[in-house]
Amino acid sequence: MAKHTLLMEGPDAKGLIFHVTSVLFNNACNIHKQDEYVSPSGLFFMRTEFVSADNLDSEKVLSDLRKQVPNTDIKFTINPDRKKDIVLLCTKEHHCLSEILIRYAFEELNANVLAVVSNYNTLQPFVSKFGIPFHHISTEGKTREEHEAAVIKTLDIYNPELLILAKYMRILSPDFVSKYSNKIINIHHSFLPAFIGANPYKQAFERGVKVIGATAHFVNDELDEGPIIAQDTKEVDHRFSAKDMARDGRDVEKMVLIKALKLVLNDRVFIFGNRTIIL
Amino acid sequence: MAKHTLLMEGPDAKGLIFHVTSVLFNNACNIHKQDEYVSPSGLFFMRTEFVSADNLDSEKVLSDLRKQVPNTDIKFTINPDRKKDIVLLCTKEHHCLSEILIRYAFEELNANVLAVVSNYNTLQPFVSKFGIPFHHISTEGKTREEHEAAVIKTLDIYNPELLILAKYMRILSPDFVSKYSNKIINIHHSFLPAFIGANPYKQAFERGVKVIGATAHFVNDELDEGPIIAQDTKEVDHRFSAKDMARDGRDVEKMVLIKALKLVLNDRVFIFGNRTIIL
Amino acid sequence: MAKHTLLMEGPDAKGLIFHVTSVLFNNACNIHKQDEYVSPSGLFFMRTEFVSADNLDSEKVLSDLRKQVPNTDIKFTINPDRKKDIVLLCTKEHHCLSEILIRYAFEELNANVLAVVSNYNTLQPFVSKFGIPFHHISTEGKTREEHEAAVIKTLDIYNPELLILAKYMRILSPDFVSKYSNKIINIHHSFLPAFIGANPYKQAFERGVKVIGATAHFVNDELDEGPIIAQDTKEVDHRFSAKDMARDGRDVEKMVLIKALKLVLNDRVFIFGNRTIIL
Amino acid sequence: MAKHTLLMEGPDAKGLIFHVTSVLFNNACNIHKQDEYVSPSGLFFMRTEFVSADNLDSEKVLSDLRKQVPNTDIKFTINPDRKKDIVLLCTKEHHCLSEILIRYAFEELNANVLAVVSNYNTLQPFVSKFGIPFHHISTEGKTREEHEAAVIKTLDIYNPELLILAKYMRILSPDFVSKYSNKIINIHHSFLPAFIGANPYKQAFERGVKVIGATAHFVNDELDEGPIIAQDTKEVDHRFSAKDMARDGRDVEKMVLIKALKLVLNDRVFIFGNRTIIL
Repeated sequence: MAKHTLLMEGPDAKGLIFHVTSVLFNNACNIHKQDEYVSPSGLFFMRTEFVSADNLDSEKVLSDLRKQVPNTDIKFTINPDRKKDIVLLCTKEHHCLSEILIRYAFEELNANVLAVVSNYNTLQPFVSKFGIPFHHISTEGKTREEHEAAVIKTLDIYNPELLILAKYMRILSPDFVSKYSNKIINIHHSFLPAFIGANPYKQAFERGVKVIGATAHFVNDELDEGPIIAQDTKEVDHRFSAKDMARDGRDVEKMVLIKALKLVLNDRVFIFGNRTIIL
Repeated sequence: MAKHTLLMEGPDAKGLIFHVTSVLFNNACNIHKQDEYVSPSGLFFMRTEFVSADNLDSEKVLSDLRKQVPNTDIKFTINPDRKKDIVLLCTKEHHCLSEILIRYAFEELNANVLAVVSNYNTLQPFVSKFGIPFHHISTEGKTREEHEAAVIKTLDIYNPELLILAKYMRILSPDFVSKYSNKIINIHHSFLPAFIGANPYKQAFERGVKVIGATAHFVNDELDEGPIIAQDTKEVDHRFSAKDMARDGRDVEKMVLIKALKLVLNDRVFIFGNRTIIL
Repeated sequence: MAKHTLLMEGPDAKGLIFHVTSVLFNNACNIHKQDEYVSPSGLFFMRTEFVSADNLDSEKVLSDLRKQVPNTDIKFTINPDRKKDIVLLCTKEHHCLSEILIRYAFEELNANVLAVVSNYNTLQPFVSKFGIPFHHISTEGKTREEHEAAVIKTLDIYNPELLILAKYMRILSPDFVSKYSNKIINIHHSFLPAFIGANPYKQAFERGVKVIGATAHFVNDELDEGPIIAQDTKEVDHRFSAKDMARDGRDVEKMVLIKALKLVLNDRVFIFGNRTIIL
Repeated sequence: MAKHTLLMEGPDAKGLIFHVTSVLFNNACNIHKQDEYVSPSGLFFMRTEFVSADNLDSEKVLSDLRKQVPNTDIKFTINPDRKKDIVLLCTKEHHCLSEILIRYAFEELNANVLAVVSNYNTLQPFVSKFGIPFHHISTEGKTREEHEAAVIKTLDIYNPELLILAKYMRILSPDFVSKYSNKIINIHHSFLPAFIGANPYKQAFERGVKVIGATAHFVNDELDEGPIIAQDTKEVDHRFSAKDMARDGRDVEKMVLIKALKLVLNDRVFIFGNRTIIL
């Protein structure tokens, strides 16, 4: 038995669920979990987990789906159950990186961590414990463009399906982002859209908030404006300095990033304009 | 356009979603939201919200479903979108009762509150503000059986579809429970199964817990053992006396009861042995 | 025995706790609970709950404190345990108002609700159930200044110690605010500073956030910028329309407002620049 | 400047705060943070963080306190700010162990991790990455007494101030517990007192709960009955198998254990009968 995920999105129409389930039924596929969403604007999103015989011909199923649902604005994808290739980018803070590496080391993530890339070598000794290549690409003596070119050159070795910014404290250029469109996940240390930009905990302290938070999101061209995948918050009080908020906030950051990463690795996230649909 | 909910439960089989969606498609019904669950033991539960023409012949749809899915162990129900008739039972505490009455008064619940029944008259003046009949049925001079008989006699006037025990501090007899099988919702002031029985906050204080909670559940013959619909918890610390816990716990209780009540009123709860499936 | 609260704030200095506790000790006052905070900038805040003989001469204690702590930049206040006079302002939504009125009706708040003032008469029938004066001050045919003048004239009848904006959907002028400086509590329907201004749930929907929230704060001259007293958040997902967020958000709003109100009524909130210290 | 913590517990009496603060004042110690609790039964607990000159004579301060507070039932302790020596016990699961080791490796804990002891060698390769001694003490061919004797012999090498049961899946004998009285912290995978004993997630699944949780507590002679230090919970639903609950529960377990560990390492926990006071 093989497990697959069918992803589908496009304009809503009567009978879509019926058409899809009939194709799967006729191809001897058994649905384990199906979830769908229709946006107020009339877009239909559906994720279907199904099991089939080991030798499922996905192309044949896709072709049957195309015949049954001729509207070519509707996009179908069938993903087998396999690990995605990811590369992690970090700077000096370890908490998000170490959370991912530990889970990777104990095979709890549906991912292969191919490499870690960093603008500092601070975390090299730690990463080396896990036998993962660490690429220190210093910014020293490089323009922003040169640095990004060097990073991209390194990434090209690995051809990752996802880049995880595990507290990578540099802003990516539009060119970089467009090269990895919808494939970069960032963790921002505030509950966006509060405290966009630098030093969110300092901003939070100065505003005197009673909750802090973290946001995992896809990166697009607008700073901290990409589609949000996961968020969480934590109570603080007047006794918290900006540094205390940062310390406790790290626990929220790493758990939110892991949550988002798992959702993406399990093909549960659709990007819809500036929002995500999680099925 | 009319809104309906199709509920379905029974042994899992290949193609069930396909069969149901085909019947709805052929009856010109459009699915708005569908959610299903297959238990590890092989039972299938599905809830489907759909819209149809105003004059939908539900019996015809059910008959088509029966033809398409001949296994009579599979149960189908089609509910139109309408308010359920409920009666509230209370004792002396107001917080759950008032939360329901306020929401009822402002038409936020999918329910008609027909009456309030209480073993004390404490809350009569309050209930009277809302123009709802209040029946004070004192236990004085009555055996437990006599008291329950009097309560049942009063309930029979209203023929409610649901009884809400809004802090009704009496244990119901098996006879009473069986008369309203799967129709009684209770709020228990602990995160069950911790602190079954009387005085859960006193028990919680004595155990020195750091969280308290509340549980809304269907009532069955075992004390505080019925299927759980909703639960929530709240942090406490050593400064909380049992009385403080009770005070803060009331906020959790009323919100958990409202959550459970909304789920049941919107036909989202299946009872499955001693558990609930919420679709 | 009488209960009192001593509030103290000013520049930090060695021995302040010692000096205060010695004065209380020498006046036969027994401390039940004491909490203090020293800001990084060197300001000292302390709240001390103590019990004394019924006939405590507060002026004498204050005079002893002044002698022991001669620095006149340090402010002392002794509050007896009594209910504060409050007036509620609302527009059309009931949930914050009703939450306060129910708790007032059952004597769960350390407050006297003197009146309700509204720019609409929508909630008049509801308020009248509780026997509380309701003043409908329409904005029709009035300039903003005239309307505020009429509201102030009504408030002057009651001379409230606190104004609670229980979903009062009008922005107050600087003159109004300065008349009730540090005495106006507002509930804003977002986790500030996210979504300042109008329609925060619509803003939240459009940004695609995964948490919504509410903020209770003192009102100052900057829109939604006053010192935050309490905040809480709640998870949402892509299925929530702006209207769904508003519906579920109301539960957060009312609980956050009640939390803030209780803190202020119990003399637990110090205002410190744009932040609050809660002891 | 040196940082110290003064801990104090004993029968309540008038003026205790005054007496303590006067001694500290007279010894040129400046209080940074003071928190106290009086139990309903009349016991007084106080924790005072203060700074002094580097060469503080703690014995002199203690002697002054003894003179000022002659009641010998009142216990005083002054702890300097230093790392505590701890040993970790584990079995096969890594998540609590790795969370502690990572934080230790990055110097985020006020502790020296001296060694890891396990009844399995599963985690040896992982622990060795951190350069910490790993003692595999198999139970094979040993009675329970012999195994515990071997563990104790190993612990004696290190003389730890705290033992952390980081998912150590063996029940300790009363002799073992009494040897490390009030020094053993365990993490239990349920919100105690729900689901005492083995397989709490299986119990939780069978009961159909909507929240799961974890409890960090001191170990005493009664199984899962020791004083609770920290608890937290997490929502689940009917889709969670016992295995799913265990997977998600691990995130709660590790964060609750870390929270409790930090509290104990920072001298913030008093044991009071079967409860903890956290100041």
